[in-house]
Amino acid sequence: MLLLAEKATPGKVRTMRKDAGGLICVSVGQAHARRMKLRFATQMLEECKIPLLSRMGRKKMPYGDMPAFSISINHLSTFTGISYIDRAKTIREFGKLAKRNGTARDLKKSFRAIGHVFLLIGRGLEKRRGHTELSLALAHAGGMDLPVALCEMLSDTGRAASREEARAYAERHGIPFLEGKELLAAIRSGGANGMAHECGLC
Amino acid sequence: MLLLAEKATPGKVRTMRKDAGGLICVSVGQAHARRMKLRFATQMLEECKIPLLSRMGRKKMPYGDMPAFSISINHLSTFTGISYIDRAKTIREFGKLAKRNGTARDLKKSFRAIGHVFLLIGRGLEKRRGHTELSLALAHAGGMDLPVALCEMLSDTGRAASREEARAYAERHGIPFLEGKELLAAIRSGGANGMAHECGLC
Repeated sequence: MLLLAEKATPGKVRTMRKDAGGLICVSVGQAHARRMKLRFATQMLEECKIPLLSRMGRKKMPYGDMPAFSISINHLSTFTGISYIDRAKTIREFGKLAKRNGTARDLKKSFRAIGHVFLLIGRGLEKRRGHTELSLALAHAGGMDLPVALCEMLSDTGRAASREEARAYAERHGIPFLEGKELLAAIRSGGANGMAHECGLC
Repeated sequence: MLLLAEKATPGKVRTMRKDAGGLICVSVGQAHARRMKLRFATQMLEECKIPLLSRMGRKKMPYGDMPAFSISINHLSTFTGISYIDRAKTIREFGKLAKRNGTARDLKKSFRAIGHVFLLIGRGLEKRRGHTELSLALAHAGGMDLPVALCEMLSDTGRAASREEARAYAERHGIPFLEGKELLAAIRSGGANGMAHECGLC
């Protein structure tokens, strides 16, 4: 489930939590991540000089990738950071910060770490095609190089929601449904801009 | 919502996610954390030598505490780590590892970081009385110095569930309901052991 970060509201975070149920994260493109001096959490683990712990961060995921996690944050105006109101505020303010090309200094001024919204850094589609990179590619196709809030859909089977379950949910709720391979094909054929607008992301 | 980590099942993780809805974490006592060389995430941020980022970790929460977060983990046998099946496996195996007094080496052998289950380190009731410390104190009262899986209950109001909402949910589902101050009083009066058993935690 994807949403341009700057458009997050408590109601939308509630829908993500209730109807999707995975971890509510925000994907960030390379340029914004560089400007904010964000690092991969696995890199930071490596630098902690606890050999055993740092080696835990060197393990690839079973699908062959390194995780996209950076730090987690709370906006300074939040209380615990976990309520819908708090998470929406953190996500929205982070989205706005990126929109005005905020720096590490700006990030530090308005947010604390560690928090309850998980930042993910996109490695670019040429390197990785996880939901982090795909969500950023969709926003980019719509002319918006901005952070995207995202949440995996889970299923009562105990596993991730299947394509069919996700499609049925999207149809029931009038939400555009898009597969990664459709987006990749549209990018190749130059038609992804329309797709991003159709998805209401941009 | 509390659960002894070693007792986690996909069904129980599903209940935590659907009926509580906060972040699903595992609290770890000082002795286990030391044995596993776990550190506070805020300490690790400090050591990353990015002055702006590290300073983000020095900010206290609005209620005056430092966050309890350590690293997040996935058991090596999991796939993405976020499904109920994956999270239950990670939580259960971490609980079992602590039970057999696992070390940092054991942790490294069976888990990867960064993952989808968030470890919290208890500072002890004398220093902090958050859900991290209270959950560990309840398990301790029952003679079980073991990790506890926990999840904040959220409300449709957009805020944390009120005491009344949480109590009504517990009554509806036959789950023991306990306030922090009741636990603290029971610990002082020496009656907390019975409380821990009544709560089904131990």
